[in-house]
Amino acid sequence: MRYQGGSDEGRTADQSASEKLRRVLNARSVAVVGASEDLRKPGGRVVNALLHNDFPGKIYPVNPSREQIQGLDCHPSVDAIGEAVDLVILSVPAEDVPDQLRMGCDCGVGGFIVFASGFSETGSEGTARQAEISQIVQDAGVPMIGPNCLGIMNGNHNMLASSTVVMGGRRLPGGNYGFATQSGALGTYWLDMTMKAGLGVSTWISTGNEADVDLAACLDYFAEDDETEVIGLYIEGIRDGAAFRAAARKAFERRKPVLVLKSGSSRQGATAAASHTGALAGEDEAYDAVFRQYNIWRSGSLTDMANQAEILLTQPRSAGQRVAVISVSGGAGVLMTDASVAEGLDVPDFSPETKQRLAKILPGFATPQNPIDLTAQIVMHKTMLREVLRIISDDTGYDGLLLFMGGLGQIAEELADALVSELPRDMPCALTWQAAPEETVRQVRERGIPVYGEIGDAARALATQFRMSAGWNGPTPAEAPPIIQGGRPEGPFGVEHRSKDLLCSATSLERPVGVFATDPGNLMEVGRELSGPLVVKLQSPAMLHKSGSGGIALGLQNVDEAAESARGMIKSATARGIPFDGVLVEEMISFDHEFIVGLRCDPVFGPMLVLGRGGVTVELEPDVTRAFLPLTASEIEDMIRSLRAAPLLEGFRGAQPCDIAGLARIVKELCDLYMHDETLSEIEINPLVADRTGRFVALDALVSRSPETRVGDAP
Amino acid sequence: MRYQGGSDEGRTADQSASEKLRRVLNARSVAVVGASEDLRKPGGRVVNALLHNDFPGKIYPVNPSREQIQGLDCHPSVDAIGEAVDLVILSVPAEDVPDQLRMGCDCGVGGFIVFASGFSETGSEGTARQAEISQIVQDAGVPMIGPNCLGIMNGNHNMLASSTVVMGGRRLPGGNYGFATQSGALGTYWLDMTMKAGLGVSTWISTGNEADVDLAACLDYFAEDDETEVIGLYIEGIRDGAAFRAAARKAFERRKPVLVLKSGSSRQGATAAASHTGALAGEDEAYDAVFRQYNIWRSGSLTDMANQAEILLTQPRSAGQRVAVISVSGGAGVLMTDASVAEGLDVPDFSPETKQRLAKILPGFATPQNPIDLTAQIVMHKTMLREVLRIISDDTGYDGLLLFMGGLGQIAEELADALVSELPRDMPCALTWQAAPEETVRQVRERGIPVYGEIGDAARALATQFRMSAGWNGPTPAEAPPIIQGGRPEGPFGVEHRSKDLLCSATSLERPVGVFATDPGNLMEVGRELSGPLVVKLQSPAMLHKSGSGGIALGLQNVDEAAESARGMIKSATARGIPFDGVLVEEMISFDHEFIVGLRCDPVFGPMLVLGRGGVTVELEPDVTRAFLPLTASEIEDMIRSLRAAPLLEGFRGAQPCDIAGLARIVKELCDLYMHDETLSEIEINPLVADRTGRFVALDALVSRSPETRVGDAP
Repeated sequence: MRYQGGSDEGRTADQSASEKLRRVLNARSVAVVGASEDLRKPGGRVVNALLHNDFPGKIYPVNPSREQIQGLDCHPSVDAIGEAVDLVILSVPAEDVPDQLRMGCDCGVGGFIVFASGFSETGSEGTARQAEISQIVQDAGVPMIGPNCLGIMNGNHNMLASSTVVMGGRRLPGGNYGFATQSGALGTYWLDMTMKAGLGVSTWISTGNEADVDLAACLDYFAEDDETEVIGLYIEGIRDGAAFRAAARKAFERRKPVLVLKSGSSRQGATAAASHTGALAGEDEAYDAVFRQYNIWRSGSLTDMANQAEILLTQPRSAGQRVAVISVSGGAGVLMTDASVAEGLDVPDFSPETKQRLAKILPGFATPQNPIDLTAQIVMHKTMLREVLRIISDDTGYDGLLLFMGGLGQIAEELADALVSELPRDMPCALTWQAAPEETVRQVRERGIPVYGEIGDAARALATQFRMSAGWNGPTPAEAPPIIQGGRPEGPFGVEHRSKDLLCSATSLERPVGVFATDPGNLMEVGRELSGPLVVKLQSPAMLHKSGSGGIALGLQNVDEAAESARGMIKSATARGIPFDGVLVEEMISFDHEFIVGLRCDPVFGPMLVLGRGGVTVELEPDVTRAFLPLTASEIEDMIRSLRAAPLLEGFRGAQPCDIAGLARIVKELCDLYMHDETLSEIEINPLVADRTGRFVALDALVSRSPETRVGDAP
Repeated sequence: MRYQGGSDEGRTADQSASEKLRRVLNARSVAVVGASEDLRKPGGRVVNALLHNDFPGKIYPVNPSREQIQGLDCHPSVDAIGEAVDLVILSVPAEDVPDQLRMGCDCGVGGFIVFASGFSETGSEGTARQAEISQIVQDAGVPMIGPNCLGIMNGNHNMLASSTVVMGGRRLPGGNYGFATQSGALGTYWLDMTMKAGLGVSTWISTGNEADVDLAACLDYFAEDDETEVIGLYIEGIRDGAAFRAAARKAFERRKPVLVLKSGSSRQGATAAASHTGALAGEDEAYDAVFRQYNIWRSGSLTDMANQAEILLTQPRSAGQRVAVISVSGGAGVLMTDASVAEGLDVPDFSPETKQRLAKILPGFATPQNPIDLTAQIVMHKTMLREVLRIISDDTGYDGLLLFMGGLGQIAEELADALVSELPRDMPCALTWQAAPEETVRQVRERGIPVYGEIGDAARALATQFRMSAGWNGPTPAEAPPIIQGGRPEGPFGVEHRSKDLLCSATSLERPVGVFATDPGNLMEVGRELSGPLVVKLQSPAMLHKSGSGGIALGLQNVDEAAESARGMIKSATARGIPFDGVLVEEMISFDHEFIVGLRCDPVFGPMLVLGRGGVTVELEPDVTRAFLPLTASEIEDMIRSLRAAPLLEGFRGAQPCDIAGLARIVKELCDLYMHDETLSEIEINPLVADRTGRFVALDALVSRSPETRVGDAP
């Protein structure tokens, strides 16, 4: 059974995949094979970590050469323990792993963690070894985490089943923030940062080579886990796009924020990642599209992620845009305002009533406007902050609150008390405190107020929270279709005229008035009703992009000229040995808007729509959006309106507007065609134009089919 | 004498303005008027700060009601001290300041710091009071810092002449980083952040209301100060643009990095700032342009600034683009690569020789490529880092080095030693260390290696350093012309035909073939040689932007049609009571590129060129660049090439290229015209087009002159 999240396929009679994983991640009994007294070894460190963090369950060191390890009775082998433990940690060389897995499965253990490297990350021999161990556990239906991983941790159950040294004697605080990572090292930096931020951990999982349990399974687990409210992921590459989409959909339905850090946003980085992991991740833009579609937030860094988690874990979640800014420094208040605006927030003025109330309590020379400058007087007038917060809370014109404190060590406790008691609990707030006494920051955080060291971080955290909340207000993404991992088989592109035949017969998409002729001599006959200006295009499978290669002539005035042009084109193609079907002659049309519409199968996430503005200038600055099928016409319309050129489509400054809803309907038909006919490899319409009467016409189109079929065959 | 940086005007027989400021900032004797025993008062805190930081000079508390203050002999007044002290700090109410200033000036003191608020930030009475104290000190030629400021500090001379509490008992470390700030509070957050980053301070100046010494004077001081290598500024608004440009030019000549944080990048923020400071800052985009022109780096935050200062203070300065990335974690190495690429850096592959040498010492499964993954093996092979660094240093294909460490507390000291001894000293390096032992970070920093907590910060710091270094490789900006603070007097715009008369006679700028007629009846006569298509434009001072108001008709086929159109236009204007000169009829021309060229006087920084791409789509996404006169044709050419549309101008994808050098020459002529004729308020050419023969033609133009002159008068 391939261990995949979100699906109950292959479950044993007793348990689903996620229930099995739950048993492992909440284990009450742990065996460590290869346990050691030596803390320089992973087998020593993990036993020590379990003990040091007061693991309440049973720990069974397994090592045939010792009677006791770190004060615990030692067993010669797993099957000598006499109990089907929930979790077996294998700290043994790679070559010993298969036998240990078999033994554990025979004993009915809950699951495995495999520390050893020497598997698929090393080359073909290791890949074969990894396939072997995958087979063993999947045949038995027993989950395995790793190999080549750093283990797991459960903060609420005091289980540190990991060999990492990053804890440095610290205890893992329990909480509601879960994290799964494809890099063990980065996972340890996440732990350090999370603890320093005062956030508590539900479950931490280092998935290693993902021979069985993968990131999608972890996301699915977290989506269902009541102890996890915010989910973090470090992604190098998703192996099972369908499972990932299903798990992401589950998180969306439950409105659980998912924060992702993904490597390989650059070509050079992606190349480096491929050699690091031994796997190809797929296109980074496809991941961007998935994240956007499922309301997953892509962080710029671990620090970014920590900043975001802090507000999501402590503050109410609501959509919004308007912030009130309160500061003890006028300059910082302006910077807070600048940062808010940069994040797309509004900083609107207070209501007259609020202004009056504020004017009564603010120092004479501070004008009660937004941002409010409390000034240094706050030191003298100790109730000022309380009173201001109460007044702002009463004003319903705001969706969130940003505060700035600086220094003020001498009244830090009073300020903290005021914040804790007076901050509105029904709207999200974020506090920036610079030159802050460390103890005060800790106290404020402990009482559930997110504290940031820099103004931009607070503004970004609040704005992102607003955006994510708004994202869940939309419809849940539909279930993903079955996805062929690696994509649909690629085939050759069919020629334009046949591609147009297919698309225009299967959908409402139109084509220019025109004729196809195998022989220019026929043109005078079949094209006699065409009126210029005309375009002539050679129809050759060897010349798909005709401009620049002599395969296209524009602006012919009538059929005579077209025929002459066609004769020249054919003569040249013949002389150069280029195969061709014939020529396509079409009436040229005027249009106001041109688009690129592409449909193809992303190797990871499945059928994907690429929709963008067309024309030569956009090759300089692409204006493109992507999303995965299935899509409703309404979702496609949102995509069109998300283009940078959207104002032009809506009729900016007298430009001719575009029938956006109509375009969305046509594109929807094309999406449905593509999704339901798996013999289609790729569709590319460039450009698709809106002509002056509002018709949507394919000026050029290419369809490719998998090798067994040819474009033009009946679908 | 208005205290302005960069100018020796008004100096006394003995000293220039900057020498006088030097005496104050390096004072060896300080009097504190309003000194107190009470540390809750500024007059108490500043004495305490001087003592606590072991000020080596003489401290004279001045307070008529006490014999001793904080163990020092107290004096009843400044003139009772018996010595002309270098610095007098006035910690007295606003109303007492004038007399104290007079007394100090009479005594020949070096200069003043005024703490008191109650001046121009409070309204008209305070503004009058501030004008009075400015007059006193400027008549006497004695510098005054403030009022309403937090004082100054000199880290290399142990002088803490400030009432701030932010130090919290910490001593100010000496060093080479100077800072001047228009917000005292923000200045204290800068202090805290700078000390926490382990950076040392040369001089810190809180300028307050800038009644005498302003930010420009501070920048000028820092530019000349041998103890200052990196200059930071917090700006709300510059009062003397000429002085600022002169000081910025001085810093450029000396290649001293200037890092600026400026508030008011948003409209709402700028409005808030205006009420906070009681002053108008001017347009934020103008500041952006000044910063760019003088190679000043605009930080996004104090943290940004600290990150940048750290690398500039510790690493060699050189231009470049290619980085080598060394990491202990494969995942982090990919993230470092992504961040480098995002900052515009290259991460090129190693030379074959380097690869061979690396392969010998790296673990078997780590491919020697860039980024290098040292893996966790670094713990076992303790000399690995040293050897890798040596090999990389030998490879001349790199301009800088980015390193990533994570955790590794157990070998932190060895790693730190290896870094310190092996990092190449001739190229800049930046280290990111996550989950770092605090002591190790401190040690590494103490030895001059910049350490960052996040990958993106290190990459940005290195990339910015490269860019600033490249910026100094260009020519020094020319000296600014005399600047009329507040801008040139605004006058009405002249009508188009007169504006074109002026511009096209004074420069090589061309105009479309056309005629002006006061009476449509004349058109048949004067316009008989015009060939269509034609455009007809009503010439009215009340209708400067004609489209959308019926004042323009396009595409008339011949003079007859033009005359008819003109008659209709005039009839309509007459009926609506709109004044007009007549009509302008021009031949329409075809063009490939259109530009906006504007010249106006920024109220702060003087004559400014605004140059951008024209056309309706750019109103959606403006593509504009600004710079201050004077400019060479070469600098203007660089501006054009910096536009986003530059590839199109250079002939992207078969687009017709534009004669960029020719455009730059025309624009230079316009700049010279504007700069030398101060009666010109504003010139706006929109659009200026490059026609198909390469001529540069003003399709529309407007010139406004100060009220005493009229467009059309001889210049």
